[in-house]
Amino acid sequence: MKTYLECYPCFLRQALDAAEFAHASDAEKTSVVQATLALLQTLDPQATPPEIGDEIHRLVRATIRHEDPYGELKQAATEAALQLLPWMRSQIAHAPDPFERAVRIAIAGNIIDFGPGASYDLERALSEVTQKPCAINDLEALRGALANSESVLYLADNAGETVFDRALIETLDSDVTYAVKGGAVLNDATLDDARDAGLGACATLMSTGLDAPGTILKRTSAVFQRKYAEAEVIIAKGQANYETLSPGDARVFFLLRAKCPVIARDLGTEAGAIVVRQGDAGGRL
Amino acid sequence: MKTYLECYPCFLRQALDAAEFAHASDAEKTSVVQATLALLQTLDPQATPPEIGDEIHRLVRATIRHEDPYGELKQAATEAALQLLPWMRSQIAHAPDPFERAVRIAIAGNIIDFGPGASYDLERALSEVTQKPCAINDLEALRGALANSESVLYLADNAGETVFDRALIETLDSDVTYAVKGGAVLNDATLDDARDAGLGACATLMSTGLDAPGTILKRTSAVFQRKYAEAEVIIAKGQANYETLSPGDARVFFLLRAKCPVIARDLGTEAGAIVVRQGDAGGRL
Repeated sequence: MKTYLECYPCFLRQALDAAEFAHASDAEKTSVVQATLALLQTLDPQATPPEIGDEIHRLVRATIRHEDPYGELKQAATEAALQLLPWMRSQIAHAPDPFERAVRIAIAGNIIDFGPGASYDLERALSEVTQKPCAINDLEALRGALANSESVLYLADNAGETVFDRALIETLDSDVTYAVKGGAVLNDATLDDARDAGLGACATLMSTGLDAPGTILKRTSAVFQRKYAEAEVIIAKGQANYETLSPGDARVFFLLRAKCPVIARDLGTEAGAIVVRQGDAGGRL
Repeated sequence: MKTYLECYPCFLRQALDAAEFAHASDAEKTSVVQATLALLQTLDPQATPPEIGDEIHRLVRATIRHEDPYGELKQAATEAALQLLPWMRSQIAHAPDPFERAVRIAIAGNIIDFGPGASYDLERALSEVTQKPCAINDLEALRGALANSESVLYLADNAGETVFDRALIETLDSDVTYAVKGGAVLNDATLDDARDAGLGACATLMSTGLDAPGTILKRTSAVFQRKYAEAEVIIAKGQANYETLSPGDARVFFLLRAKCPVIARDLGTEAGAIVVRQGDAGGRL
């Protein structure tokens, strides 16, 4: 997905949020804003939002000399989500269609995101998860694809959301490889975050080899690129994976909450929509 | 009120909104974003937000060569508000405390504002107007000041909101001078907008002589400055008048909805709060 002009104010806000989360001083925050204003003037407008976000968050980390501005938030999100895991498992076990419920729970976890805004309402997201219709619903195609394959490549999104992914992965019969970021960026999950969330018990963990939001395929490691090319089914969680991998191909299933109005418009839906979208049948990346 | 770093993303969004409202082309919108990014790097961070907003909106108008990007929105807002005037008058006439209700209605009109966001929910604002407690409530001081004075200087805010001001002004015994902007900026009311809203029937209309948001006193006309200095009571509507005139003095009463979180924090209240705040008794500008 291309970057829209509406993304620019949001990048600036996100840079300032990152500095706030890292407890930067006022002088550092001023430097972050000035540096981001300068950077935004020089960026390639054809880049996807996560590619621009990658440059901005590198700049923020360098400006405030902090390797992981979202570190505290990520730990807290994982701990809070782990408290909810028994509830998730019970929801899935007692649902008329456990697979559908598990997918919805995984998507509910996508509300844990400090990119589109500085806060989120997890309780509200969970109460919506069993009721709200999916705006784009390729659930049956996903069910069919999983039934016909032995392995799944699952592209993680944020720390904390990982636990909601775990609840879904525990219900799958396939071998799951859970791919996380190669280093800290935004509140995206890294190997440490995935381990903290207990993903090691139900999936093989791997890194994309890249510390940028989403999955910028051409910059991921050779090992990851091979894994991606050979995957039977790919579950791509969250907005940034949609932004970097869409339109994708028929093996790819984007699972997300459309939290930002720009992405919602690109998907042809409303902000807040619950989305299960299969990639384009025609293309293969 | 000083400009906070959180205002910067908002300025950028506002510049883009203005270009959208004026139906600018994609190339013009790109130019607006680039020019605003450059301008934001050079501004005096000690300036108030309306002073910075003034520079930005001048830049937008020059970049897209459009004298009044909010012109259509202003007319529509005035027409919609005029439809509600009979309802406002009836609300006031039948209220247990007509003055209090009239002040609340004038504040409800302050939701008509394209500065803090590109849209607003007038219906919700009106339903809140009779119920929500005032977060800062100097209503009795205002009532007393009006009882002890023969004239009021009323500093207008936005087109459409003018009609809500009219409903309040119609209830006052004092002579009211209604001061509007000297030219188009954002959706702020000008003399034409005030006339369209029927303010000529209940107040003397005058211009501040300046086409900038709020009331940047030192840049207003000599006639207006004299009027301000001699005023017995001053009603200052909206955020930008608060941003430019606070802390004010004991003659000044700020009437507003705190729509943006930064102003709400400066006021020591929550976003969405209904505010009647008397200026500082100690100072006189």
